[in-house]
Amino acid sequence: MKFDFSARAHTLMSSPLLSIRTQTRRGSLISLAEELPAEELFPLSLLAEAASTVISEDAQALQYGDPEGYGPLRDWLAGEWLKKQGVHVPVDGVLLTTGSQQAVDLLARVYIDPGDRVLVENPTSPGILQALRMQGAEIVPVKSDRDGLLPEDLRLQLESHRPKALFAAPSFSNPSGILWSVERRRAVLELCTAHQVLIVEDDSYGDLSFRRSNGKSERYPSLYALEDAGDDGHVLYIGSFSKTVAPALRTGWAAGNRELIMVMAAAKGMADWQSSSLNQRLLYHLLHATSFSLREHIKLLNREYDTRLKLMVELLKRAAWNGCSYDAPSGGMFLWVSLPDGLDSLILLKNSLRKGVAFLPGTLCTPDGSGSGYVRLNFSHPGRDELLLGMNLMGEAIKEFTARS
Amino acid sequence: MKFDFSARAHTLMSSPLLSIRTQTRRGSLISLAEELPAEELFPLSLLAEAASTVISEDAQALQYGDPEGYGPLRDWLAGEWLKKQGVHVPVDGVLLTTGSQQAVDLLARVYIDPGDRVLVENPTSPGILQALRMQGAEIVPVKSDRDGLLPEDLRLQLESHRPKALFAAPSFSNPSGILWSVERRRAVLELCTAHQVLIVEDDSYGDLSFRRSNGKSERYPSLYALEDAGDDGHVLYIGSFSKTVAPALRTGWAAGNRELIMVMAAAKGMADWQSSSLNQRLLYHLLHATSFSLREHIKLLNREYDTRLKLMVELLKRAAWNGCSYDAPSGGMFLWVSLPDGLDSLILLKNSLRKGVAFLPGTLCTPDGSGSGYVRLNFSHPGRDELLLGMNLMGEAIKEFTARS
Repeated sequence: MKFDFSARAHTLMSSPLLSIRTQTRRGSLISLAEELPAEELFPLSLLAEAASTVISEDAQALQYGDPEGYGPLRDWLAGEWLKKQGVHVPVDGVLLTTGSQQAVDLLARVYIDPGDRVLVENPTSPGILQALRMQGAEIVPVKSDRDGLLPEDLRLQLESHRPKALFAAPSFSNPSGILWSVERRRAVLELCTAHQVLIVEDDSYGDLSFRRSNGKSERYPSLYALEDAGDDGHVLYIGSFSKTVAPALRTGWAAGNRELIMVMAAAKGMADWQSSSLNQRLLYHLLHATSFSLREHIKLLNREYDTRLKLMVELLKRAAWNGCSYDAPSGGMFLWVSLPDGLDSLILLKNSLRKGVAFLPGTLCTPDGSGSGYVRLNFSHPGRDELLLGMNLMGEAIKEFTARS
Repeated sequence: MKFDFSARAHTLMSSPLLSIRTQTRRGSLISLAEELPAEELFPLSLLAEAASTVISEDAQALQYGDPEGYGPLRDWLAGEWLKKQGVHVPVDGVLLTTGSQQAVDLLARVYIDPGDRVLVENPTSPGILQALRMQGAEIVPVKSDRDGLLPEDLRLQLESHRPKALFAAPSFSNPSGILWSVERRRAVLELCTAHQVLIVEDDSYGDLSFRRSNGKSERYPSLYALEDAGDDGHVLYIGSFSKTVAPALRTGWAAGNRELIMVMAAAKGMADWQSSSLNQRLLYHLLHATSFSLREHIKLLNREYDTRLKLMVELLKRAAWNGCSYDAPSGGMFLWVSLPDGLDSLILLKNSLRKGVAFLPGTLCTPDGSGSGYVRLNFSHPGRDELLLGMNLMGEAIKEFTARS
């Protein structure tokens, strides 16, 4: 039969993301395109032990749970992990989701009507753009520089568009890796509060901070923590264990106002009843293992990722990359690289794929196509050899263009 | 701040399901309201072994996977499990989802526009009704009797409403437990095919069949198998491991036309990237364990559930239940009971909750409120003592009403 898809489905079908995902997933490719953590750093044996204990001890671990997620893990987040970061939230203000992407999608479904204006950082993550398009949102990009969103432009967009929400990732955003200054955080918070605009703060990468003062990794307060207004606040705080523990546990969260969380939980129940409470129990067990400290584990990740970032930055200095520019981030998983004038990221991708290396074209990270001259490079997943080879192959592809022009 | 929820969110917020879920979840209650399998029958030790092996053997088990799900499990479904049931589908016609509910939600998102007419069995599952309401569908109930949908009424609704899809569960539907006759299956298939209407066939309960001929449990061919038209078919086939293995593995599937599956997979990527490939690997490992046979395990479940059903049917013969009527199903997890004239299921619920027993009011299972005189009772989860006590308490609540009237 001929299928008559919904209008929104066409936003998915027409996205180049679909074919790019397929192309960049070939096994033989070196991929700088992904958002993958380094699997060699997963706490494998501790998780294997957790799984075997959790399953054999309690049949409830395999039974249906609550749409909101496994209670003790929500307690741990609210009572311990988030609190230490200044995020004060009651346990019924925490919803466990299938990764942070589901938190974004659920929020969009319960908060955005077709035609609603929504502000985003520019560039922003392809996942957020897709979820907003699927809701029929009118996406309005806000300008930013290396210190974060530009308050003047934010004010302008707030006044001229009267948006319902701002989506932002102030700490090591995907794709640009920017860390907003505290001043900018305050300014953005103040402006959105004055305009009664919901801020959806994606802090999935916030823990991956490589800068250290006195041996402690530096972490600016989240917008949620800065406002610290409890149930009267304007920020929904989104995070995930995917980058800090393991993605296949598919455990992210949304934290914030209890009414908002309750409605999102109802949407979650409608969407898939609940995420895997088994995985949530594994995480809880791991977090309480005497031989595991999430904080120490994150330090380990950050040391290794910092090394990989430094290698990538070194490789970018090679002649083949002349004409490219970037701001080296101090955390996250990505470098956002501006290509030589006139080189389109989709054309470069074609040539690079032929050579055996993939990356994410910037086009996918901007609502208005303004990212066509950029590429997002992932430095967390490829090991040293892959990184050397991949950057070499990409450099060749770039040189072929610059030599011609 | 004051939250300005989307129009669709109000379909969730106004649903009595929300407060009923909260009320019926109190720990001290005996619940006949749930859709839970019996956790004492979970293959615990085999799954514990699977988890520990899968995680220690391969770090990829904890890494991101594909939106479509773990390849070998999709292969197994397409190449073995479904094929034996006459469901012929290529591996790229299979999408793994977070339970069957997500398959329903994803299909609704990519196929239903606001105002589209969609046919449903009446009664139908609360989860399907919610997902359709969330898409803004206009839900049209089709009449049925104990043999399934009434072809005459289906024809009438097809002609007068020109719907986009029919949602049906021909084998032991939730809530009514009806098993459609083969003749009805053929008639429905023929009518929908003629009208180019997509059939979404939910077969989540199809394996739970208690009738036996020659010691083999009886299973009618699914609509998908009856049509057997491969990529030219009109049926999307939905199933799940939640009832046959364990719900917390959150693994269901949609199988059908490759284009439809591809678009649903794109929507899945947008919604949550992917379900837990770790859980999918656990399942795959279990299904290949020499000491486990899914078919034998399902037989075990069916023997036990049949016993529980028979007990419930016995208890329904007690005087307190005078004026109630039902058709005892030959499979599934539920009895759909018509209450004495004039007794509203929501009022009965209030009284029953006071006594300490919960059930699902029929109101939630009909798009038009026509189920207010019915209750859905679950017989798969409560053990013998719970069942005795729960039915007793409910009987008392009913008697209080019938004695008055």
